[in-house]
Amino acid sequence: MRLAGKRCERDTYKLAFKVKQVIVLRSDIKMSPGKAAAQASHAAVSSAEEARRNYPSWWREWIESGQCKIVLKVNSESEILELMRKAKELNLPAALISDMGLTELEPGTITALGIGPAPSNLIDKITGSLPLY
Amino acid sequence: MRLAGKRCERDTYKLAFKVKQVIVLRSDIKMSPGKAAAQASHAAVSSAEEARRNYPSWWREWIESGQCKIVLKVNSESEILELMRKAKELNLPAALISDMGLTELEPGTITALGIGPAPSNLIDKITGSLPLY
Repeated sequence: MRLAGKRCERDTYKLAFKVKQVIVLRSDIKMSPGKAAAQASHAAVSSAEEARRNYPSWWREWIESGQCKIVLKVNSESEILELMRKAKELNLPAALISDMGLTELEPGTITALGIGPAPSNLIDKITGSLPLY
Repeated sequence: MRLAGKRCERDTYKLAFKVKQVIVLRSDIKMSPGKAAAQASHAAVSSAEEARRNYPSWWREWIESGQCKIVLKVNSESEILELMRKAKELNLPAALISDMGLTELEPGTITALGIGPAPSNLIDKITGSLPLY
């Protein structure tokens, strides 16, 4: 059994060089808790996979230290696109998720963004001021 | 940008040999939508990583076909433990997640279970009757 977020809340906020993953969900679109969980999971897996391929040392540290994940929110599509742009500018692993719209949403709706795993101090430059989802 | 669940709802329910991932959350414990999304994401990443290591062909097909994910619910700890037991009995990749309890929950609370990616017909033997979260 995995102890999720083992070092997340305890250490990562304090030690700037620990690694974490941030998942950003849009709060301006109506998603059920299950839909939000699925979109967050897509972002988590896709961004983690990008880190595994391109930033293996960050990925390994993150997996071994309990996969710190924080779920935050923005209130518009333009905000989530701007966060993606900034993540790419800082060369951070990131994945933008859009939904096929077969159930709750319009086709192509952008729902979520995963950033990291990457060093917390780098991610905080982008998402440090966002509220929890 | 990833089109999440691309083949998920459209194909996977119909074609028994497609692969999917099921995430099971407990509905009998009080989790905010953000907490539920984080726990689901832990389960998704951990179970996907087990599949990548031990069932690489299932994992590859799942990644390439849009990462079908379904979020379901159970109403007790005993049910989620029983699902984990059955997943192991069928030799499916799976990951049981417990929370450190630093925020909303008691320490060690089991929150989520990820099963797969694995062939849908195998996962359905275990979770086929569960409702959406």
